[in-house]
Amino acid sequence: MASIQDISLAAAVNILSAIVFLVAFAILRLQPVNDRVYFPKWYLKGIRGSPTRSKAFASKFINLDFRTYIRFLNWMPAALRMPQPELIDHAGLDSAVYIRIYLLGLKIFAPITALAFGVLVPVNWTGESLDNVKDLTFSNIDKLSISNVSPGSQRFWAHLVMAYVFSFWTCYVLYKEYKIVATLRLHFLASENRRPDQFTVLVRNVPPDPDESVSEHVEHFFCVNHPDHYLSHQIVYNANKLANIVAQRKSLQNWLVYYQNKYETNPTKKPTTKTGFWGLWGKTVDAIDYYTAEIGKLSEEEAGERERVISDNNSIVPAAFVSFKSRWGAAVCAQTQQSSNPTIWLTEWAPEPRDVYWENLAIPFVELTIRRLLMAVGLFFLTFFFMIPIAFVQSIANLDSIQKVLPFLKPLIQKKVVKSFIQGFLPGIALKIFLIILPTILMTMSRIEGFTSLSSLERRSAGKYHLFLLVNVFLGSIIYGTAFQQLHTFLNQSPTEIPKTVGVSIPMKATFFITYIMVDGWAGIAAEIVRLVPLVMFHIKNTFLVKTEQDREQAMDPGSLNFSTSEPRIQLYFLLGLVYSVITPILLPFIIVFFAFSYMVFRHQIINVYDQKYESGATFWPDVHRRIIIGLIISQLLLMGLMSTKGAENSTPFLIVLPVLTIWFHRFCKGRFESAFMKFPLQDAMVKDTLERATEPNLNLKAYMQDAYVHPVFKGGDFERPQAIDEEENNPLVPTKRSSRKDSKYPSDVSSEGGICVGSGGGVVS
Amino acid sequence: MASIQDISLAAAVNILSAIVFLVAFAILRLQPVNDRVYFPKWYLKGIRGSPTRSKAFASKFINLDFRTYIRFLNWMPAALRMPQPELIDHAGLDSAVYIRIYLLGLKIFAPITALAFGVLVPVNWTGESLDNVKDLTFSNIDKLSISNVSPGSQRFWAHLVMAYVFSFWTCYVLYKEYKIVATLRLHFLASENRRPDQFTVLVRNVPPDPDESVSEHVEHFFCVNHPDHYLSHQIVYNANKLANIVAQRKSLQNWLVYYQNKYETNPTKKPTTKTGFWGLWGKTVDAIDYYTAEIGKLSEEEAGERERVISDNNSIVPAAFVSFKSRWGAAVCAQTQQSSNPTIWLTEWAPEPRDVYWENLAIPFVELTIRRLLMAVGLFFLTFFFMIPIAFVQSIANLDSIQKVLPFLKPLIQKKVVKSFIQGFLPGIALKIFLIILPTILMTMSRIEGFTSLSSLERRSAGKYHLFLLVNVFLGSIIYGTAFQQLHTFLNQSPTEIPKTVGVSIPMKATFFITYIMVDGWAGIAAEIVRLVPLVMFHIKNTFLVKTEQDREQAMDPGSLNFSTSEPRIQLYFLLGLVYSVITPILLPFIIVFFAFSYMVFRHQIINVYDQKYESGATFWPDVHRRIIIGLIISQLLLMGLMSTKGAENSTPFLIVLPVLTIWFHRFCKGRFESAFMKFPLQDAMVKDTLERATEPNLNLKAYMQDAYVHPVFKGGDFERPQAIDEEENNPLVPTKRSSRKDSKYPSDVSSEGGICVGSGGGVVS
Repeated sequence: MASIQDISLAAAVNILSAIVFLVAFAILRLQPVNDRVYFPKWYLKGIRGSPTRSKAFASKFINLDFRTYIRFLNWMPAALRMPQPELIDHAGLDSAVYIRIYLLGLKIFAPITALAFGVLVPVNWTGESLDNVKDLTFSNIDKLSISNVSPGSQRFWAHLVMAYVFSFWTCYVLYKEYKIVATLRLHFLASENRRPDQFTVLVRNVPPDPDESVSEHVEHFFCVNHPDHYLSHQIVYNANKLANIVAQRKSLQNWLVYYQNKYETNPTKKPTTKTGFWGLWGKTVDAIDYYTAEIGKLSEEEAGERERVISDNNSIVPAAFVSFKSRWGAAVCAQTQQSSNPTIWLTEWAPEPRDVYWENLAIPFVELTIRRLLMAVGLFFLTFFFMIPIAFVQSIANLDSIQKVLPFLKPLIQKKVVKSFIQGFLPGIALKIFLIILPTILMTMSRIEGFTSLSSLERRSAGKYHLFLLVNVFLGSIIYGTAFQQLHTFLNQSPTEIPKTVGVSIPMKATFFITYIMVDGWAGIAAEIVRLVPLVMFHIKNTFLVKTEQDREQAMDPGSLNFSTSEPRIQLYFLLGLVYSVITPILLPFIIVFFAFSYMVFRHQIINVYDQKYESGATFWPDVHRRIIIGLIISQLLLMGLMSTKGAENSTPFLIVLPVLTIWFHRFCKGRFESAFMKFPLQDAMVKDTLERATEPNLNLKAYMQDAYVHPVFKGGDFERPQAIDEEENNPLVPTKRSSRKDSKYPSDVSSEGGICVGSGGGVVS
Repeated sequence: MASIQDISLAAAVNILSAIVFLVAFAILRLQPVNDRVYFPKWYLKGIRGSPTRSKAFASKFINLDFRTYIRFLNWMPAALRMPQPELIDHAGLDSAVYIRIYLLGLKIFAPITALAFGVLVPVNWTGESLDNVKDLTFSNIDKLSISNVSPGSQRFWAHLVMAYVFSFWTCYVLYKEYKIVATLRLHFLASENRRPDQFTVLVRNVPPDPDESVSEHVEHFFCVNHPDHYLSHQIVYNANKLANIVAQRKSLQNWLVYYQNKYETNPTKKPTTKTGFWGLWGKTVDAIDYYTAEIGKLSEEEAGERERVISDNNSIVPAAFVSFKSRWGAAVCAQTQQSSNPTIWLTEWAPEPRDVYWENLAIPFVELTIRRLLMAVGLFFLTFFFMIPIAFVQSIANLDSIQKVLPFLKPLIQKKVVKSFIQGFLPGIALKIFLIILPTILMTMSRIEGFTSLSSLERRSAGKYHLFLLVNVFLGSIIYGTAFQQLHTFLNQSPTEIPKTVGVSIPMKATFFITYIMVDGWAGIAAEIVRLVPLVMFHIKNTFLVKTEQDREQAMDPGSLNFSTSEPRIQLYFLLGLVYSVITPILLPFIIVFFAFSYMVFRHQIINVYDQKYESGATFWPDVHRRIIIGLIISQLLLMGLMSTKGAENSTPFLIVLPVLTIWFHRFCKGRFESAFMKFPLQDAMVKDTLERATEPNLNLKAYMQDAYVHPVFKGGDFERPQAIDEEENNPLVPTKRSSRKDSKYPSDVSSEGGICVGSGGGVVS
């Protein structure tokens, strides 16, 4: 056990590194040349102009106004200044609610800390159980923890009562917060502008029909079963191959620009490249000619593929986006069952167009259930047995095998410094690599499970990551040994023994987790704000690729909140705080600093930096709520286990009530709030519809919906499209021209006319 | 362990008693005087006339045609003769599907038995492990079971493979059956005639409104949010007190009739009664005068209460039955969320009018969740700790305490015969009484949980009873000791130990369960068909009360299938069959006889006797399916435990796949079929609507719906009502007369007119 001195030292080191990061950030962000790295959001919004335009040459790149350096922390109040409604408007509800998770942490733990320091710390400190044990393994920290209370003492009543108080307070705050977020979401949905997804339902598993195409079948089905509400539909193409070609062409285009720039700056020498992999080997050719030719080839291929996708019936997947004349109609269709066979004609509220995960729209029901089974089994093995392949890699990746495979490295490896470095480094590297790619593995697993929107993919991955962290970081740190060994122990222990085994080692691990919080939660968050990787990447791109203002726009990498990895990490802090709140309250201030600091940093980031890829309207909140509840229940069970080893077994019936009440509270909240995150209530839909009919009686919804759910690769002509629609709206005499243009550019399958369901309008490009 | 001789003896006794019951039934059912006991269903249908009308005096009561006695089993083929579609038409889908549970048992276990006897019995028999053990505790039955295979033998492969085969076969049959039942249900819903519940949605938790009555509020809400579909609504009165008074009056009426009959048969002596409790003590008065006066008093009270309920706003509960113009509109409203607060305006598909449980319509959301929490805790204690109060009652209800309280019984009690009888009888009586009232307790608990239909109440009670039987009968018989002791053991044992502990005692309990099956499953079912209690009750009523043909109609007690208790009992047989299929296959034929015999008996009963109180369209099937799956998983886990104690621990990874696959299969079936039992698909609703519009374009749905959901106590004038409607339909000039009559008789709140939502039509009897 570390003493207070050790902790202080660790704290000093971590605070120092955090300060270093903050100072670096303060300096870097004031340099105009970094402006696009630290304020990309404002550029994307078009509010902030390029600082390179108007000033003197030097001040284009470096900030020479030294007065601005003095207030190196002045971003903090600035970040806090923006009021929440404006923040939602500016950054979206997802981001605004995401930072409320940190705020929730503060709300839960600030009063708990005050109470714990007011009641439990004095009770523990005067417990004097450890004074009698003249043993060096105990330190001052332990004197503040429950370890200092002698077994069977009446003082445990304080801890029991506090466990109740803390649990009730946590539930109260959670309830309030769920209510606030639900209200925010409903308000957001009600106040936001017209969006295509409000009118649209994603229909999957369209059954095959021998006589009709998918498009006709969809149209007929909805014309019959939603006659007063059906507006139009958009079929979905399997354009994965086409998307690949487009991506490939874009990458080549990048290289072409790079060489053209090179040639422009140095016109005397024609740049060359090699035709092999990554330009590393192969025949040397003129780069510009080579890439122009390659792009030409790919463009042709792309055109061919585009033609094939549109004309080939097999490239139409049995799914469609069906639009309705009113939000009411869409809400009804999304929430009801269409067919007596519940595995076909599956309808769900369509995700935002940006949020659609196109690859997964065509998975049939049986395959879906099999995929989920396989992934559930896979997740189990990944969580509990991931150490086995890593240990195997470690066993072969040692010095001897390296010497065997690469004998020319022998003299280098046998140098003492190098050897010891490798020996210290190599065993960890396989694990490190695994932990780095773990989120990607989990995301791939979620993709295989077949979810149809990016937001649901992120939510599912977060759930998996949470399980992994819980088992391998939390339990893994408390109990020595791998998760597999834990599993083995748990299977062979009685259910009442498990909380005891874990509970008894919890107080001893407090200092470890304090250090963890400081490294990961303090210094780590400070590193986040410096944005080192995007900073370097931006300058590389800026130097080599950027020609025009638009290129510079594209060189920015604003990034986004990565819900799937960062939310489970926050949950770890909730879990630690709840577990240690009764046992070792000294840990709580560290958690509070983490939440407060993170809140400021991420508030700054979502205001100035991040650009979310989609907006789901805080659909993730039920998950956040549920995981905090899980943490709370774990803390209660562990306290029960710890208590029964401390000679206070009689407290068990008193404590068992807590998890029962907590589970009930969770069910209550689920019933009370969850559907606000799943369904669109008809009353709200009706209000919005009525309002819209009154304010915009002549709205042409059909035209509005026309391109909303076209696959992104068909949205090549993005910029010209809106005018094309307008022109057509104003001049209804040119329908033939429109349809021919449509054919040549991309498929648009808005087929029925203004609600009169015509029988044969579903042909796509016939 | 019992030997084959013991089993044979038990079988002989039980078969004999079953035959006695069957012979008694065969004789009794042929007596014309019992015709209404054994064929009440036909009387209720109006198909069978009273046999007492036309024949000679003696043959009115006794069947003198001795030829009919010879074929005393001829009801069996008769019961099997009716084809299923006719059966559904005759007895309803609930009953027809209920007997399919027995058929399902046959389908599952007949091939399993054949295979087990073909493969496992020879393998076990030649195992010869027990031949070496010269011990009297083993019998021939054990030689046929897995106990005869020596530990670690390769023969266990046969059992493992058979476990797979049996599991897959069970799942396959379950899948087929789920599909058949789902199809039957959809077909039933599609083909059945117009029913009020197809158009109606039950709305609960109508929020209070300061300016409007509940009725107005409901009407406005649905006029706004379902403008094209809303037809009318029926508010719900809290008429529990009124219903009590009506029931009381009816009971007095019965007594009046009884005394009038008495007076008629013996006009010389005026019958008297006493005014006290049950006519046992108090002043002696003239019975006819007394009851006439009492009925008069109650009638007045009833009229007053009727007036109060109708006029008092507080007796209107915040719930309503809202009817729609089409099935489509009702299906949409039932499946969607109405308000952004998901705890108000809760809509669900209305139960059949007969199926409504009126008392529970007014429970608010928060109270509901608290009630469910309390009942869940209560069920836990009831299941695991029910022995504690019973042991307490037993401890005070012994001979000594009886002597103390009732000293005058002392001489009687001290007689040896009486004493030993009481000593043998008394300890069991508390338990017996508890087991008899247990279904009532469980039903009361379900009522407290707040379900709104009788069918859901029965389903919930069945779930609770199933848990109780599983823990206290199945596990309780295998492991000695009370459920509480088991719970204690299980909590202090590792999860892997539990299947071992239970699994190892399973083969030893085979003979016990065989006896259980014969007593409960063979003789018990044979007793069911004799209907002893209804037989006696009918003859008592017939002698003392019946005056007219209509009285005799009411004296019949056809009874009904009691899903809440009988289904969990069938599940016990499924569980036993699945558990023993691999371990002791000799038990299987007994199960098969049970299923085959029960199938015939209950098919006969639903054809000739039972009269279901409601028709839910086989909504219980998902529960049946789930419980068989639970039984299957239990059997797999116990086999795993048994195997690991038989030196075949290596089979665990091979066997663990089975429960995983079974759980997946359950989820698959749930996704594939369950919504057919929960929701009304829009496609089907639309088909029925369209058909109806085509065949009956002038249908007055409003009139049809008018009284459908009126509380039964307001349906006093049942018989005259239909004509009243018809008359009004034909003569639309008398609306004032109608409304005045309506006011005086019962409240009818069909307020809006033909879909034009009028603002103030919601006043009830203003």
